[in-house]
Amino acid sequence: MRMVDVIEKKRDGLKLTKEEIRFAVEGYTNGKVPDYQMSALAMAIFFQDMTTDERAELTLAMVESGDQIDLSAIEGIKVDKHSTGGVGDKTTIALAPLVAAVGVPVAKMSGRGLGHTGGTIDKLESIPGFSVEMDTATFQELVNHNKLAVVGQTGNLTPADKKLYSLRDVTATVNSIPLIASSIMSKKIASGADAIVLDVKTGSGAFMKELDQSKELAEAMVAIGKSLGRDTMAIISDMNQPLGLTIGNALEVKEAIEVLKGEGPDDVRELCLTLGSQMVYLAKKAASIEEARQQLEEVIANGEALNVLKTFIKAQHGDPSIVDSPEKLPEATYKIAVHAKQSGTVSEIVANKIGTAAMVLGAGRATKDAQIDLAVGIVLHKKIGDYVEAGEPIATLHANKENVEHVSKMVQEAYSFTEQKVEKLPLIYDVIQ
Amino acid sequence: MRMVDVIEKKRDGLKLTKEEIRFAVEGYTNGKVPDYQMSALAMAIFFQDMTTDERAELTLAMVESGDQIDLSAIEGIKVDKHSTGGVGDKTTIALAPLVAAVGVPVAKMSGRGLGHTGGTIDKLESIPGFSVEMDTATFQELVNHNKLAVVGQTGNLTPADKKLYSLRDVTATVNSIPLIASSIMSKKIASGADAIVLDVKTGSGAFMKELDQSKELAEAMVAIGKSLGRDTMAIISDMNQPLGLTIGNALEVKEAIEVLKGEGPDDVRELCLTLGSQMVYLAKKAASIEEARQQLEEVIANGEALNVLKTFIKAQHGDPSIVDSPEKLPEATYKIAVHAKQSGTVSEIVANKIGTAAMVLGAGRATKDAQIDLAVGIVLHKKIGDYVEAGEPIATLHANKENVEHVSKMVQEAYSFTEQKVEKLPLIYDVIQ
Repeated sequence: MRMVDVIEKKRDGLKLTKEEIRFAVEGYTNGKVPDYQMSALAMAIFFQDMTTDERAELTLAMVESGDQIDLSAIEGIKVDKHSTGGVGDKTTIALAPLVAAVGVPVAKMSGRGLGHTGGTIDKLESIPGFSVEMDTATFQELVNHNKLAVVGQTGNLTPADKKLYSLRDVTATVNSIPLIASSIMSKKIASGADAIVLDVKTGSGAFMKELDQSKELAEAMVAIGKSLGRDTMAIISDMNQPLGLTIGNALEVKEAIEVLKGEGPDDVRELCLTLGSQMVYLAKKAASIEEARQQLEEVIANGEALNVLKTFIKAQHGDPSIVDSPEKLPEATYKIAVHAKQSGTVSEIVANKIGTAAMVLGAGRATKDAQIDLAVGIVLHKKIGDYVEAGEPIATLHANKENVEHVSKMVQEAYSFTEQKVEKLPLIYDVIQ
Repeated sequence: MRMVDVIEKKRDGLKLTKEEIRFAVEGYTNGKVPDYQMSALAMAIFFQDMTTDERAELTLAMVESGDQIDLSAIEGIKVDKHSTGGVGDKTTIALAPLVAAVGVPVAKMSGRGLGHTGGTIDKLESIPGFSVEMDTATFQELVNHNKLAVVGQTGNLTPADKKLYSLRDVTATVNSIPLIASSIMSKKIASGADAIVLDVKTGSGAFMKELDQSKELAEAMVAIGKSLGRDTMAIISDMNQPLGLTIGNALEVKEAIEVLKGEGPDDVRELCLTLGSQMVYLAKKAASIEEARQQLEEVIANGEALNVLKTFIKAQHGDPSIVDSPEKLPEATYKIAVHAKQSGTVSEIVANKIGTAAMVLGAGRATKDAQIDLAVGIVLHKKIGDYVEAGEPIATLHANKENVEHVSKMVQEAYSFTEQKVEKLPLIYDVIQ
């Protein structure tokens, strides 16, 4: 087989066989297929797309390009959740103890990554003493015992995807549904998930700005998951403004704790209940989505979810007293109000601008080796549809440096106001099953 | 400027600026733009095409990526001819002395190349003593004095094109009109041509199999030439069977000499007169195509074309007596008739199969360093439309080894016969001006 023939076939809009896809992915992983052929194939895929079968084969070939996590020692159906990423998305922190409290085993491998804030691990590390370092046996034991553990990602997962992603980034082939979908799904499947719940964000702050694109991506991922024998579903949720009110590592942990107390912003709580009920249902802990949701509401109401969180924190050497006394989480020195420059109803909050502002304060990493300040971030006081008087605070910066006027300005610029009435945005646009 | 943005722009169907095209081509030539970005751009061009302006800029950027031949010391308008390549195409050998005889300066730089037979230089070297080695001053002096000289290609012409062509070859991006057209035109323009006559082949034995594709390529090249201030025209000529009756280096020289004597196969003579009249007209040696053709017919009839050939051969240290005594050209030891396996009218002669058969006999190079046997080749006795009795010879192999049954079989397989009447194919399908 010759790679040039595989490229030509896809270029001409024909369906690649399992063997051709394997040949390309394995060859690329072991260096026999050079970058310049893979980038030409990626561009041909950009234009000619792939069938569901091809997408599933591509995903599987990337899964098998590296290590695969074996979670078989953990009892029950392991359901993983994945979000395509958005500003202020702290759902994992609340969702993990929430579904664990109704018996869904949560064996979470997580990374740090680049972004406006740190990843789930960074956020959890704002809890004093908390550690994600443990051996596999301990990890499995903790999940079996407590239904929840979070460990740092180990092993060489989906090296083909890593290599291909870097290549796509510099060859204008990122924005391709079959390539995005197979990339995400390969990582989830290599991590050992039996079932997968996807939170595909849509809107100005999401990777997919348009609803139809987001649906297409969600449908592509669900189809891949099902083709590869994983119960998979997706919701399409709003990212036309940041999720909840906090952006920043310790700040987001606080908000997640509020949700487990039955408090916190409506959107975060509702998203956790929506995603959580799907997870409980896929884990076969409830006969219907409605029943699953009732169970979740119950463990919030009776404090069981909070208890699971405390047990989880303690088991990973963290200080569980932060749950009842969140003021023990790292706190920034300066709290600087950002004031509205005009009166009106909030019509837009550009999520990426808020995210970037948080990153400038030190909440996230621009490069791999950058240090994160777990205490800093932004708390929003106004969301889309809220009325604001000129001079009223719209947000508060939590900073560890005094001179952050440029950040205040970024936050101000993220807000738009109108004299018109503004409808609240829906939180969930669609459910793809 | 970032290459990824240039790729994305073309991917999205937008027109690249002169600066963007320069950036890509210069960067690629000097190694700042890696292969994997250039191949992604080539694939994006494959799908999104380029405007005439973009194609001209791409051509010019490739011209300027290396040396450019300066023919200004040679008097008159230098007209170059280029053929997209076919089996049995010996037109250059006849055409060069033919147009030189009416005063068109022919300053030909030529290569050897890979193929079914050698290139123009290999063919000329079948003339005993003939040499293409000379310095630039001698070359210019010979053209000024005799109106004709042929020299081996020197200098680092269009390195960007060379590098891009190799890349396209392994990334399934060869078959793109803007990339083919700019590749050919960049070489012609870097070689110093003031005006260009293109012979675009069409049919089963051509690179472009379909007439509309061939026309599209011809129109693309003519538009590029004109954009860059070179008087350019193209004819579309048939390659549904080999041109003329001979395939092989010395054999083709013989046929070319016949044409200059007013003899030889109709198709070769007609193609030489068609291309030649265009060259004479573009060189402004005639006021019309008709007048140009009359001049050419005259120098054939009065022997002037043959005289120019003799002078040319002598000036380049060859033996001019081969013109009157072509039997002095290298001759193969074995002449083996290939017999028709059935009766009928010839309906098809797959040119590439005949070409490959000639190469197997030793007439061409499969690799750069392969030795060519100048004497060997194939003489066809029957062309499309001719009636053949079973057992009648359809061709003769000129071989220097005895056991060539496999080659006979290849030639037999190239021929198809029918009981139906077969129309002769047109030689010239179109003229693009």
